Amino acid sequence: MTGVIKPVQIARPNKVVTMTTTFEMFVDLPEDQRGAHLSRNLEAIGEIVDEGVRNPAYSLEDLVAKLSVKLLEKHPYASDGEVWARSDYFLEKITPMGRPSLEPYKLVARSLAHRGRRIEVRKSIGIEAVGMTACPCAMETIREENPAYATLKDLPIITHNQRNRTSLVLEEPEGFDLEADDLIGIVESSMSAPTYEVLKRPDEGRLVEMAHARPRFVEDVVREVLARVLQKYKDLPDDVLVKVKSDSEESIHKHDAVAERVATLGELRAP
Amino acid sequence: MTGVIKPVQIARPNKVVTMTTTFEMFVDLPEDQRGAHLSRNLEAIGEIVDEGVRNPAYSLEDLVAKLSVKLLEKHPYASDGEVWARSDYFLEKITPMGRPSLEPYKLVARSLAHRGRRIEVRKSIGIEAVGMTACPCAMETIREENPAYATLKDLPIITHNQRNRTSLVLEEPEGFDLEADDLIGIVESSMSAPTYEVLKRPDEGRLVEMAHARPRFVEDVVREVLARVLQKYKDLPDDVLVKVKSDSEESIHKHDAVAERVATLGELRAP
Amino acid sequence: MTGVIKPVQIARPNKVVTMTTTFEMFVDLPEDQRGAHLSRNLEAIGEIVDEGVRNPAYSLEDLVAKLSVKLLEKHPYASDGEVWARSDYFLEKITPMGRPSLEPYKLVARSLAHRGRRIEVRKSIGIEAVGMTACPCAMETIREENPAYATLKDLPIITHNQRNRTSLVLEEPEGFDLEADDLIGIVESSMSAPTYEVLKRPDEGRLVEMAHARPRFVEDVVREVLARVLQKYKDLPDDVLVKVKSDSEESIHKHDAVAERVATLGELRAP
Amino acid sequence: MTGVIKPVQIARPNKVVTMTTTFEMFVDLPEDQRGAHLSRNLEAIGEIVDEGVRNPAYSLEDLVAKLSVKLLEKHPYASDGEVWARSDYFLEKITPMGRPSLEPYKLVARSLAHRGRRIEVRKSIGIEAVGMTACPCAMETIREENPAYATLKDLPIITHNQRNRTSLVLEEPEGFDLEADDLIGIVESSMSAPTYEVLKRPDEGRLVEMAHARPRFVEDVVREVLARVLQKYKDLPDDVLVKVKSDSEESIHKHDAVAERVATLGELRAP
Repeated sequence: MTGVIKPVQIARPNKVVTMTTTFEMFVDLPEDQRGAHLSRNLEAIGEIVDEGVRNPAYSLEDLVAKLSVKLLEKHPYASDGEVWARSDYFLEKITPMGRPSLEPYKLVARSLAHRGRRIEVRKSIGIEAVGMTACPCAMETIREENPAYATLKDLPIITHNQRNRTSLVLEEPEGFDLEADDLIGIVESSMSAPTYEVLKRPDEGRLVEMAHARPRFVEDVVREVLARVLQKYKDLPDDVLVKVKSDSEESIHKHDAVAERVATLGELRAP
Repeated sequence: MTGVIKPVQIARPNKVVTMTTTFEMFVDLPEDQRGAHLSRNLEAIGEIVDEGVRNPAYSLEDLVAKLSVKLLEKHPYASDGEVWARSDYFLEKITPMGRPSLEPYKLVARSLAHRGRRIEVRKSIGIEAVGMTACPCAMETIREENPAYATLKDLPIITHNQRNRTSLVLEEPEGFDLEADDLIGIVESSMSAPTYEVLKRPDEGRLVEMAHARPRFVEDVVREVLARVLQKYKDLPDDVLVKVKSDSEESIHKHDAVAERVATLGELRAP
Repeated sequence: MTGVIKPVQIARPNKVVTMTTTFEMFVDLPEDQRGAHLSRNLEAIGEIVDEGVRNPAYSLEDLVAKLSVKLLEKHPYASDGEVWARSDYFLEKITPMGRPSLEPYKLVARSLAHRGRRIEVRKSIGIEAVGMTACPCAMETIREENPAYATLKDLPIITHNQRNRTSLVLEEPEGFDLEADDLIGIVESSMSAPTYEVLKRPDEGRLVEMAHARPRFVEDVVREVLARVLQKYKDLPDDVLVKVKSDSEESIHKHDAVAERVATLGELRAP
Repeated sequence: MTGVIKPVQIARPNKVVTMTTTFEMFVDLPEDQRGAHLSRNLEAIGEIVDEGVRNPAYSLEDLVAKLSVKLLEKHPYASDGEVWARSDYFLEKITPMGRPSLEPYKLVARSLAHRGRRIEVRKSIGIEAVGMTACPCAMETIREENPAYATLKDLPIITHNQRNRTSLVLEEPEGFDLEADDLIGIVESSMSAPTYEVLKRPDEGRLVEMAHARPRFVEDVVREVLARVLQKYKDLPDDVLVKVKSDSEESIHKHDAVAERVATLGELRAP
């Protein structure tokens, strides 16, 4: 079942936030089972969301974890219950010149509940952020070809830059509590620069300088994100799966440049 | 009726091109008419497209003009027949360093056939092109705030740049024959720079320099397009309607900047 | 400026709802004005949304009305400020068998502030609802061709039915207070049947019967909506503009059937 | 690299067809490699498409296979080159009453070239078709609850039906030549009914009867497709991977019902 839209209540440290959330819910079917009683999926989500109005969930990944377990209750013939959620999420950020700006992100969560001897749950939490990349290659070419620019040893020179969309999704093992805002911080600091909705002129200048001082290909963004994940989450076990994807809407082309890596922390930590 | 997809044959000077085209077709209904016999719209398009296989249409706007007249034949109770078409279109362009590159565009056409004492047809032809804009404002701010850049009197300095999507639609009166490739030329020369699918390093550098030498807001792009339209189409009558829209996917923001103008050539020509 | 996403607080009778809202904001530019200082649009929205956290807006159309006036304050060279907003909205509905079900809708609002001798504001409020249409034409054909069905005088017979998306937008003159939930009611009762996210088997049967007892073309849906608008809003003045659009994702075709009417209440009331 | 759009020439038995095709191209990068020289991907596609104008490709999967090998030539540091293509495709079908109707489909192809001791290529071919499903569950409920319908022993009764989108992708091993038109046939005959763009009234009636005589859940569609694949492709080896996905845009709900299965022919053949 896909495209189920609900307002979801999440309890944040100081307040309850309501997030418009789109759910996908799946169960596996035995060979001989017809008609997956899809209304049971919606009962499950109805109960969870209704409960959420009284007792807001602790986090989106907790909510999908509960939902995936409830799917197995409602579908006794199924051995796997899988739930995806994707929410609009907002965070107050500070621009380069110190101005507050409310920025939009996507929050994603996924949970797979498997019925073996007992029910095991694997859940993931992730975010998607929009920022900016400036191209290192064009900057280098232009510096080589224009001797006049060479006089600007310490100042960045022109290159093409563009809107970039990067996502980071991490498994969250039992007993750990990953914070979406940290993932947003990791992604934004891995791009050439974050972007802001409100920018007065000095902010805009500073942001452009920042991006040009840190030119990055999409594959650089992916590597930076992974390096920061390793740095930040030293305690997470080796079998935690990480997925990073970075997409630059190239300003000098009509197509996009994309880089992606899916790996366990163990693979990333190996020398 | 919307979302009707057909392969359309158009006779170009040297060859027949096949364009995947999405159609929308409308007729007005008298108050007391139920059930617009939508299948007649599809008969109309079927006949036109079938004929197109034997005798390719002269242009997309000719094809929608015929179709809008045929709608009135098929729906005798209707006084207006309207047809929109939107096609994928490709054109071979030459990069700054002289390399050929096949570029994708959108071609649009619209025709309104009105049944008065006789049937009158008004048709339009338009294109949408993707290119690049560089921001004049950030460039100015940065130049003011960094004295070192001031030494580069004749060289452009850094600013944010981004993917821009600009469309131009013009009415084509009876007896005139507007060429889509000319409209593409007008739009691409009005942006900070056109973009190309294939760019080797020297091409890329040259293109970035070109865009930075010609920084433009979306409203500048719209004004440039209109100025070039006036220049190019001196013979077109005053009542011809022109629509230009330019959308920059701002690299320093998460939202887009858009400018639009709809006017007759007469209004644009007025001092 | 398009694609600005904000969480908006609206005070409903019993509670404050948070709606993820996408804004478009436009001002007109004098011929000689370059660089529309777009950041001022975002300051305007920032101030309005920030204020909304302390004092939630009374309605989405009130919020866009304030915003359109603030645009004129921030852009003294402009004579028109236009704001569009589109929100995810949820309403608890009751299924045919009496079960509550939380249903998703879209809420839209638009305001145009014009600076003449004083500032005049025209605002509109609208909704988009997804429901169901069953085709009258196929039902009639099948009844004619299958004598056996003729024995079922009072029972509906088979036809194709499909997802339908209908929107209704009304101008809201000064001194009137249109309620979005009423507009949703008008649209849902004008389709063959509304739809629900949670349906147990008896609900599902009842809903299918309801839709087949009331087969409707898209043009029927538009006429039904307009008739109900006239009935419900007898006090609204003649110059109020109404726009209705109904789109059926035809199950027997790969394209959509669409009907639309834009008219003033005066035109609709004329005999 | 994603979103690269090209017109592609494919040689069909009796003619050359031009298909607007969107490509995605990927290579893996060694840890220490920066800047994937993306322009080389476009050179590869440029050469293939240019060649295609002179010598149209034999099939879309052949074209992506060549392209994936060429990626490895252009990127000597890479061990994997992957190419996806998605095209608009049209096929003339015959309606229930014998009328010809040109129908739109999507054609997809994928190839993975791996550089081991020699270059190995795995390619897949697939299609996506839009058709119709009628719900078995609501039909059963309504029959149980309405004794009058029971008199119609051999005639189908009302239920909800809707637009369905089903895709089938199969690996094509060396030496086999799968025909996209066969895959379209398998998918269309596995739905409750195919759909057509041109339907006169008797066609429409017949199609609705056909769909109601064969009510199917999305999971039924997936099973039917797989059964027909096994039947049709008895010679294909056990390690061939098959993927089927069926998505019904439920007319009684606002969300979609989706079923999917990914398996090897060996797994499907196992008793």
